[in-house]
Amino acid sequence: MSENIVIIGAVAVGPKAGCRFKRLRQDANVTLIDQDEMISYGGCGIPYFISGDVSDESELRSTSFHMVRDERFFQDDKGVTALPGTKAVKVDRKNKTVRVQSRDGGEKDLAYDKLVIGVGTKPKGLNIPGTSLKNIFCVSNLHDAIQIKEMVTSGKIEKAVVIGAGFIGLEMAEALADMWQIETSVVEYCDQIMPGFVSKNLSRMAQRHMEENGVSFYLGESVEAIEGKDSVERVKTNKRSLSADLVIMAVGIAPNTALAKDAGIEISPNGFIVVNDQMQTSDPDIYAGGDCVQISNLITGKPGFFPLGSMANRQGRVIGTNMAGGNATFKGAVGSFVVKTFDMGLAGAGLSVETALKEGFDAVGIQVSQFDRAHFYPEKEIIYLELVVDRKTRRVLGIQGFGAESSGMFTRINAVASILQYHPTVDAISNLELAYSPPFASAMDIINALGNAAENFLDGRYMPMELDEFEQCWQEKDKGDCLFLDCRAYADARVFEEMYPEIWKSIPHNELEQRIDEVPKGKRLVLICNTGVRSYEAQINLRTHGFEDTASVGAGVAGLKQSGMDFGMDT
Amino acid sequence: MSENIVIIGAVAVGPKAGCRFKRLRQDANVTLIDQDEMISYGGCGIPYFISGDVSDESELRSTSFHMVRDERFFQDDKGVTALPGTKAVKVDRKNKTVRVQSRDGGEKDLAYDKLVIGVGTKPKGLNIPGTSLKNIFCVSNLHDAIQIKEMVTSGKIEKAVVIGAGFIGLEMAEALADMWQIETSVVEYCDQIMPGFVSKNLSRMAQRHMEENGVSFYLGESVEAIEGKDSVERVKTNKRSLSADLVIMAVGIAPNTALAKDAGIEISPNGFIVVNDQMQTSDPDIYAGGDCVQISNLITGKPGFFPLGSMANRQGRVIGTNMAGGNATFKGAVGSFVVKTFDMGLAGAGLSVETALKEGFDAVGIQVSQFDRAHFYPEKEIIYLELVVDRKTRRVLGIQGFGAESSGMFTRINAVASILQYHPTVDAISNLELAYSPPFASAMDIINALGNAAENFLDGRYMPMELDEFEQCWQEKDKGDCLFLDCRAYADARVFEEMYPEIWKSIPHNELEQRIDEVPKGKRLVLICNTGVRSYEAQINLRTHGFEDTASVGAGVAGLKQSGMDFGMDT
Repeated sequence: MSENIVIIGAVAVGPKAGCRFKRLRQDANVTLIDQDEMISYGGCGIPYFISGDVSDESELRSTSFHMVRDERFFQDDKGVTALPGTKAVKVDRKNKTVRVQSRDGGEKDLAYDKLVIGVGTKPKGLNIPGTSLKNIFCVSNLHDAIQIKEMVTSGKIEKAVVIGAGFIGLEMAEALADMWQIETSVVEYCDQIMPGFVSKNLSRMAQRHMEENGVSFYLGESVEAIEGKDSVERVKTNKRSLSADLVIMAVGIAPNTALAKDAGIEISPNGFIVVNDQMQTSDPDIYAGGDCVQISNLITGKPGFFPLGSMANRQGRVIGTNMAGGNATFKGAVGSFVVKTFDMGLAGAGLSVETALKEGFDAVGIQVSQFDRAHFYPEKEIIYLELVVDRKTRRVLGIQGFGAESSGMFTRINAVASILQYHPTVDAISNLELAYSPPFASAMDIINALGNAAENFLDGRYMPMELDEFEQCWQEKDKGDCLFLDCRAYADARVFEEMYPEIWKSIPHNELEQRIDEVPKGKRLVLICNTGVRSYEAQINLRTHGFEDTASVGAGVAGLKQSGMDFGMDT
Repeated sequence: MSENIVIIGAVAVGPKAGCRFKRLRQDANVTLIDQDEMISYGGCGIPYFISGDVSDESELRSTSFHMVRDERFFQDDKGVTALPGTKAVKVDRKNKTVRVQSRDGGEKDLAYDKLVIGVGTKPKGLNIPGTSLKNIFCVSNLHDAIQIKEMVTSGKIEKAVVIGAGFIGLEMAEALADMWQIETSVVEYCDQIMPGFVSKNLSRMAQRHMEENGVSFYLGESVEAIEGKDSVERVKTNKRSLSADLVIMAVGIAPNTALAKDAGIEISPNGFIVVNDQMQTSDPDIYAGGDCVQISNLITGKPGFFPLGSMANRQGRVIGTNMAGGNATFKGAVGSFVVKTFDMGLAGAGLSVETALKEGFDAVGIQVSQFDRAHFYPEKEIIYLELVVDRKTRRVLGIQGFGAESSGMFTRINAVASILQYHPTVDAISNLELAYSPPFASAMDIINALGNAAENFLDGRYMPMELDEFEQCWQEKDKGDCLFLDCRAYADARVFEEMYPEIWKSIPHNELEQRIDEVPKGKRLVLICNTGVRSYEAQINLRTHGFEDTASVGAGVAGLKQSGMDFGMDT
């Protein structure tokens, strides 16, 4: 008799597992059920559907060859029986059946030999007054998306408030502000955007870019109520009231694991389905994958949560292979990510410095800014990278970056993301071998320069100053404790020196040895150039002359300006 | 007494080694000598200087902050004494001195505690008549480059012949044909461009793109003579005579190791300086790096030759660290590369399938074509990747790709280049974790699809047909042995079916099960769709029905068209 495979959940992991299995076992029966009518869609594309980049929701449900992935597609192209509008009510592990409820309310049992659970997540709500008003959405499925798109295209939305400055929050803010010119504000409880994913240094660059494109941010504020008569009218935070006729709640997600829990499958303390590296649950005949499971964080070795369509797809294939008797494994994730913010990208892999510190590492983040290609090549972009390393072991814990969407930032992040699973130390970054040619990279590439900077820091040769620390120094500049020593050519430094003669001094790096007597003793020297190269060299020269209290601004003036530092000038 | 470091050769590895060392040992004396007057330049930028992308040669000799790296720069900025126009005549290892000859012919001895040799390569010439005619250049230094640029800007050059279709040959062909509209031909002894680096499949795509941009190629031809009165007028190959008023010889390079050889330092059988992974020669006080040394090929474990400015720079830093008492290592290279051909790029890392076979691996190349980003995202490009794997061990030996310069091809190559040193097997590619978001990647990314295809091939499930093999089938189509079964929608397949009714049959994949009786028995079935996805699925379905002699065109119609296959149509 043919084997029966039942799959609960038909968005990402389910269809992939079912189709892969069916290709390996053409004689088996695969049934794919989902409580929704719309199945197998690219949920990550929702912000681009709302922005108008993707004109029709059906494109999110289509293959690359423009066939809508509906029941018929699954039957004809994949040999898989899809049952949309069918809810799984109960899993009976003893009898190996799933009780399902169809559109008309009728119930029946589906027998399974192997079962797959890929039921994803539900959005976390906020437990505040007013969340049941109209025009408040989570962006958790295509139905929400279609409603939001209808609203924005109707032209009736003038002001939107997005709650949460994570991935979905930022993507939605861009979608609303860019194409539809909606006055968009983002409220975030933490004091930075993308909390947990990037350092404040990088988050400020991305935030500033979004602000320049018309998005307002209210950080470190908590939403206390949503107000309105019938529809939403205002969002009240602990600090202000923001007018809104549309609210997007993007404050996190929680796994849909009630079904698995009821069936007695092992669930983690924080509510995720526990699977081994074959994606098998505590019941060997039941597999699970996608956003509802926990997988290993390959940096910390601890359980992690990586809700991404790319994870789900790859896990689905592993499940399909293993159900057919194969031995595929999914070892975990390093947590690579990328988010587009207008024409810039913010990306990373592994741990941010803040997360690494929380995890008990003696972590530090080292920043470098440099062109993505040979500096003599006409097309190039300055990109910003931060390497997170453990001081004791010199292990690389993560990398994050910010740069133009079209820049080489993304390829540097991916190159490091790829090796993080091998637990490299900093020297591996100093010597990472990217393909080189002037239109694509530098002979001493930024990725290697980043490794070099981290090595120099760990060896005590390089004492960097982060953007935050610089800002503090700058705010306290009138105290007179610091001297800002500008290592650039005089032409670049002059305007600063003239504006702040007491605290800003120009000594181009190539004149430093001759003018060493001009460097004042007894002050903290903040060394600065455009991208941190000359200020680092100056730091070494100054040490030779007995100046130990120095700090080199790693991201340089380029990084400071990118973060919005205007030095009191109209720059 | 201060330590004396002497460095012979001041292009890439030398300056880097010297400056790194000086930063670590501010009290030491570093002397950098070079027989040339122009030092520390980006030789890899020469084609872009000739094309006009880089307007002045001084840009190739400048830092990112626009200072020309001349004697004064090295003195003032780096504390390094540079002696351009100074030739190293002899190394006396016993007395630890270098005999140098200065511009005026005067000789003196420089004492060294540590010596660095970074003397690069010289171009291999062709041993044929006529090579001493005027207007024949190798592109081996800035002087050549300046002369060529003067000639092309004068407008007197109408026809150029480039001998050699490797990196420099292709870059020079683009430089001449693109900006200066010079009628440019490339003659190559091998039967493909970029021999040894990419498969014929990918080389054909790049070649076709260059042909569309006006470059002519004569492959599998050997140059027998260069003819002319005073200047070059013609290039004679074994098959034709090509008019030319400029000839670029780019037929390879050989290391400059006479000096090291004379000094009794160990030289490899093929003429390179032998170094350990600290970049130390057989004399522990003498280091060497850059194009004149051999380093380990991390794929084969054998000595390799990787003449790239990026290698030289990283090796220079290792040398500088080690001379200062550090313990840095340079373990070798996987041979990553990228070359721009007009607005496309051709890149790779590790071994090409041909090279892998020569090295004794049971190698096979698996090709996949797919969009670089989510297929529903408006901006995207089809890119072409080829994974080279060993059948027995499933080890990944290399990856190569072709795609738009601005596409995501480069980031996939770099991601795999980064992990090749860890000797991954195919499953690591199936599960490679690139950062995902629709504007940057696909949920089932092409890199994972490539790993999947390779796994399916190794497991005997996927029987692909390469472009070359397809072409042969197509040429022999009138024999009637093959049926081309088009798995695309009828709208796409129709024109083919109408044009070739005897041999081309449209059965869209979703209709295959119902129309299985229409599939003729006893013929080899060449399955084709746009990018190889549906044809692979059809292959599986057909096997279930007893059709074993099938082949799925991995790169699809997209790949065939990119290679110049027009199917006899005006496409």
